[in-house]
Amino acid sequence: MSPSATTLPTGLVSEKTPAEQKLAQPAVQGLDASKLTYEFTSSPRPVPADIATACAGSESICTDHMITVAWNVETGWATPQLRPYGPLSIMPTASVLHYATECFEGLKVYRGVDDKLRLFRPDCNARRMLMSALRISLPSFEPAELEKLIVALMAVDGARWLPSGGPPDAYLYLRPTMIGTHAQLGLQTPRDALLFITASFLPRLDTIVGGLRLNTSPEDSVRAWAGGFGYAKVGANYGPSLLASNEARARGCQQVLWLYGSEGYCTEAGGSNFFVVWKNKETGKTELVTAPLDDRLILDGVTRRSILQLARERLSDELDVVERKYTMTELQEAAAEGRLVEAFAAGTAYFVTAVSLIIHRDEDVLFPMETELGGKYTRYLKGSVSDIMYGRADHEWGVVIKETQ
Amino acid sequence: MSPSATTLPTGLVSEKTPAEQKLAQPAVQGLDASKLTYEFTSSPRPVPADIATACAGSESICTDHMITVAWNVETGWATPQLRPYGPLSIMPTASVLHYATECFEGLKVYRGVDDKLRLFRPDCNARRMLMSALRISLPSFEPAELEKLIVALMAVDGARWLPSGGPPDAYLYLRPTMIGTHAQLGLQTPRDALLFITASFLPRLDTIVGGLRLNTSPEDSVRAWAGGFGYAKVGANYGPSLLASNEARARGCQQVLWLYGSEGYCTEAGGSNFFVVWKNKETGKTELVTAPLDDRLILDGVTRRSILQLARERLSDELDVVERKYTMTELQEAAAEGRLVEAFAAGTAYFVTAVSLIIHRDEDVLFPMETELGGKYTRYLKGSVSDIMYGRADHEWGVVIKETQ
Repeated sequence: MSPSATTLPTGLVSEKTPAEQKLAQPAVQGLDASKLTYEFTSSPRPVPADIATACAGSESICTDHMITVAWNVETGWATPQLRPYGPLSIMPTASVLHYATECFEGLKVYRGVDDKLRLFRPDCNARRMLMSALRISLPSFEPAELEKLIVALMAVDGARWLPSGGPPDAYLYLRPTMIGTHAQLGLQTPRDALLFITASFLPRLDTIVGGLRLNTSPEDSVRAWAGGFGYAKVGANYGPSLLASNEARARGCQQVLWLYGSEGYCTEAGGSNFFVVWKNKETGKTELVTAPLDDRLILDGVTRRSILQLARERLSDELDVVERKYTMTELQEAAAEGRLVEAFAAGTAYFVTAVSLIIHRDEDVLFPMETELGGKYTRYLKGSVSDIMYGRADHEWGVVIKETQ
Repeated sequence: MSPSATTLPTGLVSEKTPAEQKLAQPAVQGLDASKLTYEFTSSPRPVPADIATACAGSESICTDHMITVAWNVETGWATPQLRPYGPLSIMPTASVLHYATECFEGLKVYRGVDDKLRLFRPDCNARRMLMSALRISLPSFEPAELEKLIVALMAVDGARWLPSGGPPDAYLYLRPTMIGTHAQLGLQTPRDALLFITASFLPRLDTIVGGLRLNTSPEDSVRAWAGGFGYAKVGANYGPSLLASNEARARGCQQVLWLYGSEGYCTEAGGSNFFVVWKNKETGKTELVTAPLDDRLILDGVTRRSILQLARERLSDELDVVERKYTMTELQEAAAEGRLVEAFAAGTAYFVTAVSLIIHRDEDVLFPMETELGGKYTRYLKGSVSDIMYGRADHEWGVVIKETQ
C-alpha cells in the first residue's frame, strides 16, 4: 500500500507515465544500487606486493575506491556513490561517536584458481547487516542492494588490487559499515546515517604456528548476556572486549574464549565461533559440537553455518553435528578422559584455525594437533570451504563477480 | 621512575636547564592543558536567543569553538588546540566507527545570579571520564588537565554564548568525548585517539508537565549486567538501549526504567539515576532509596552522589538515605500499601525531575505529585543543587570560571 495510492484518485494511478509514477512513489527512497554513480580516483595508489607487505604498517591499506550512501529519515537512501577512498567528514556531535550507533560486516573476496573474483555467501552478510542495523536502531534496507554495492566496488577495484597471476590464496577484506551521523547530542534514534564499504588488506590469521591459544574470560568479564546484543555485529560488542583480549595476550594467547554464566558455558572465541570435536561421554561417538544460537549470545557466523552444513552433508557417517550448550567443565572432563579430538575457531578473519590450547584459570586444556594445521576434520572442513572460495569446487555459495576491466 | 632518569647518568639530571629537562622528559607526553593553542574563528555564528529556539532544529547548535587533542601510543598527547567548531576528519577504518572505542562525559556550565560562569563538580566528570576511557581501552590522562581544558573552552566562548543578562537558569552543555581514531581494521587497542570537547545547547528536560513517566524494560532487553560495563560512560551502553527507549515512547513514557535479573531490580531511569522516597515497610520511617554502585551495573552519577550527600547532611532528621537493591515488586507493594512518597530521576540531562508513573508490564505504579515539580524532598534537593550551580549558595562544588573577555 503506497502513499500515492491512498492520496490520489484511484483511477489516475494506472494512467501515469513511468516518470509520473516515479514522482508518485513514496518520498522515502529505498537503497538502490542501480543508481550508483562513479567518481574514479585521479591518483591511483601503489598496490602492495602481498598481504604481509600490505599489513606491515599500523594502518589498513584500502583500495582506490569506497562506496558511500547517505540516509535521512525523511528522504531515505540517497544516491550511492563510488568514489576515491579517503576520510569521512563527521560532526563532533554525530551519534556514532557518542552512542555507538554502528554496525558492520566482514567478508572476503577471493581471486580463484580460474582467475575469477568470488565472494562467499555475500547474501548471508547482507542479511546479517540488516539484522544488526535494526538492533542498533539504524535504518532498514534491502539486503540484495547492499550485496550489489559490494559487487560493484570489487568489479572496479578487483582487477588492480587483487590481480590475476598474484599469490595463490589471495584475498581482500570487505567491510560494509553503517554509522549514525545525526549531529545532535541527546540519545535518540539517528535521523541521519551513512553506509559505506571499504576493501582493504587484512593479515592472514589462519596459519598460527602451534595452533590458536585461547584464554577463558575472567570471572568479572562477560561479553554478552541474555537480553543483550551478542548476536548482532554492532560496535558495542567489540570495544568493551579489549581489556579481556589484552589479558589473554599477556598470557600468551591470541584470543579470549568467552564463558557465560556461573555454569561456564563456552560461547565464542574472540570474534570467531568455537568448535570442538570430541568423543561423546556416553556413546563414544565422535561429535562436532558448537554453541547454539537460540539464546542469542553469539554471532550467527557465515563460516559457522557453512561448516555445520558441510559437516552434516559430508561427514555424517563419521560424526554427529551438535549445536548445544557445553561448559568448560565438560571440556576439562573430556581432556582428562582423553576424549578430545580437535578444536578450531571459525570466522571470516581467522577463517578455520586449529585450537591447540585453552588456558582456564590456572589449568591448561590441550587439544591434539595431528599437524600444524590441526586434525583431519579441521583440515577437511577448512579445505572444503576454501575450495568453494577459490573456485576449486563449483558451489552455489561461491558468487562470481563480473569485473569491468 | 621516568625513562630519562634510567637512561641518563644520574648526576646530569639535576644540572639540566629547564629546556634540557623538557627534552629529557619521557617520550610519551601526558595531557597538558598549559600548552593549549588558540585559533579563533573568523566567522562567529549568531547566538540563539534561548535554549528553546536553539533546540528547535534537528542538529545540536554548538558554540564557536571546540577543543581537540590528538593522542598516539608512541608520542602521547599532542598539543591541545582550541579551534573553530567544525567537522572532524575520520578515516573509514577508524576504530571508533567499528568497535565503539568511545566514551564521553556530560556536564553543564551555568550563568549564575552573580553573572559568574560556574561548573558543577567538574573534577567528578573528569575522573569518571578517565575511568570510562580505561574501561574501553582508550588512553589515560590526568583528569585535572581535562578539567582545565573544559574551563578554557568556556573562558573563551562563555561570554558570547552564555551571556550575562540572559534568561535566568541559562546553561550550556559540555561534552568531553574520546574516540579511537586508529585507522586499522581488526579488533585491537587503538594506537591513535582523539579527545574533543564541544559546548552546545541541550533542551531543558526537568520541567515535564505531569512528571516523568517510565516504562520498565521488556523482559528480553537488559541494559547492563554483572561483568559488563554499565558503570562506564561508554557508547556501548547507549545505542543498544534505543529499541527499548522507543518502546517506552510508544507507551507514552519518556524513559525506560531498566530492571535487572529475574528479581526485577530497579537500576537506572534511561540515562539518569532513579530515586524513590517511601515509608519503610517495617519501621514506617521515610527513606530515600536508590540502587547501589557495588555491582557496577549503574553509572556513578555526579547528580546522584551530590543528592545523596546533601540528603545525608541536611535531611537526616527526616529521612534515612539508603543505597540498596530494591525490586519492582517492592515498589508495587509500597504503592498498594500507600507507602510511596515521591520519586525522581537525577542526572545531568534530566537534572532532578519528578517521576509520576512507572508502567510495569500492564500495571501502573503511581507516585504522588504534590506539585507539578514533585514532592517536597524532590523540590528541596533540586533547589539545593541548583542553588550551588547558579551561585545562590556558596559551596565548593561550584567552580567559577574566569572569563577572558
